[in-house]
Amino acid sequence: MRPLKILVSNDDGVFAAGIRTLANAANARGHQVTVVCPDQERSATGHGLTLQTPIRAERADELFDDGIQAWACSGTPSDCVKLALFSLLEEWPDLVLSGINHGPNLGTDVLYSGTVSAAMEGTIEGLPALAVSSADFQWRQFEPAARIAIDVAEQMLEAGWPPAMLLNLNVPPRPAESIGPLRWCRTAVRRYTDQFDRRVDPRGRIYYWLAGEVVNDLDAEVAGPGDWPTDVAHVNQGGVALTPLQPELFWMGDTASLPALG
Amino acid sequence: MRPLKILVSNDDGVFAAGIRTLANAANARGHQVTVVCPDQERSATGHGLTLQTPIRAERADELFDDGIQAWACSGTPSDCVKLALFSLLEEWPDLVLSGINHGPNLGTDVLYSGTVSAAMEGTIEGLPALAVSSADFQWRQFEPAARIAIDVAEQMLEAGWPPAMLLNLNVPPRPAESIGPLRWCRTAVRRYTDQFDRRVDPRGRIYYWLAGEVVNDLDAEVAGPGDWPTDVAHVNQGGVALTPLQPELFWMGDTASLPALG
Repeated sequence: MRPLKILVSNDDGVFAAGIRTLANAANARGHQVTVVCPDQERSATGHGLTLQTPIRAERADELFDDGIQAWACSGTPSDCVKLALFSLLEEWPDLVLSGINHGPNLGTDVLYSGTVSAAMEGTIEGLPALAVSSADFQWRQFEPAARIAIDVAEQMLEAGWPPAMLLNLNVPPRPAESIGPLRWCRTAVRRYTDQFDRRVDPRGRIYYWLAGEVVNDLDAEVAGPGDWPTDVAHVNQGGVALTPLQPELFWMGDTASLPALG
Repeated sequence: MRPLKILVSNDDGVFAAGIRTLANAANARGHQVTVVCPDQERSATGHGLTLQTPIRAERADELFDDGIQAWACSGTPSDCVKLALFSLLEEWPDLVLSGINHGPNLGTDVLYSGTVSAAMEGTIEGLPALAVSSADFQWRQFEPAARIAIDVAEQMLEAGWPPAMLLNLNVPPRPAESIGPLRWCRTAVRRYTDQFDRRVDPRGRIYYWLAGEVVNDLDAEVAGPGDWPTDVAHVNQGGVALTPLQPELFWMGDTASLPALG
């Protein structure tokens, strides 16, 4: 494939192994890679923007392979991609890649995901964008996920990337040779139980930790074609889940059923 | 209408006039109101969650009328509603209200909105939820917006609130007598230009402020029924826009058009 200009971001920050593996893999294939990502972990920041404080961006080329330009930025993942597109990059990229996230971004959890939000900024600006996650928080072998992510992006660019579509890729925590098939998937519904730990600090005051055990609600009604597996189910079986998303929250229900107003 | 248990939150924080007007108005109608909201402004936090630090919640009843229980919380709007539902409230509410936001939450901007995200937490947990915004940052007469929000919520509860639907209400900055009609609306596409101010600090280092002028792209393709106005267009004409949203980002395009994978 012709060399692409690729913007790479994430939400785990510039020191995460996932983003280095992804950026270096794209660079090794001959693409022109620029990294603009948070200077520290910014997981679960959703589409947060920094409005009340200024943003800093420092060069961090030394953390990546030769040929990659990199900035570590004090803002959120969404800030980083906006700053890259509107202030740091000399040319508009051909593709935005976000990740590799250390942990899954599956089902309804994508609303909270900084990784998905970074890619979504690209989609909002009319660019092809893909978010990639390694579906286990402890797994540290990112090379297979990087290869699959770049393969999928290249294939979709050649096939013609549909407008306003973001791709959300989740790779199971397995060695390359035992990773299952890549499939189009729907977003599952995920619920959490026991969401907060209530504790007492050394000075006797109460505080709370957001915690929670995930419960996959596999019987819930989910959007998308009925013959597609859900992303949760497919990744749990060892497959690679590719889920199409969009930057649009408009209700998909039957608008004719809504009551008259007044 | 029978008295409802209503959870009220926002993203402008506990000292904002908007949330006090909304909570006090619901209380004055005889509903049982509990406020759980951020202890400071948390605008544009999207669906951010606080994972890396604990959350505090302090009682703030004295900021509201008699009969209202209130907590000011150190987390994001999403944290506040989660904490309310899973730790602070003794009973599940009948309704979640978020706002009144000081400024609009229109079109594609809802992705970034803490006000909408707080309501969306209610939707995700299966509760009727409504976000209400006063569509001008400077406007300070919140009584009409509070009245309309509670009217709409009561009407929708009596008509039967569709599952998994969040209502996003935007009220124009006008005195009550010149507010136009309430209509169902679609989400418009909003774009921004000149997104960052690049400045030099007193020590000679560069920093950036997120800025940007909004450009309403009224010719863009938007989701929803073609005979509904967009929320931006309707509010600009002085009307009240009611937009149905959902906690689901699955792509609404033609999935049959996607290429085979492999």
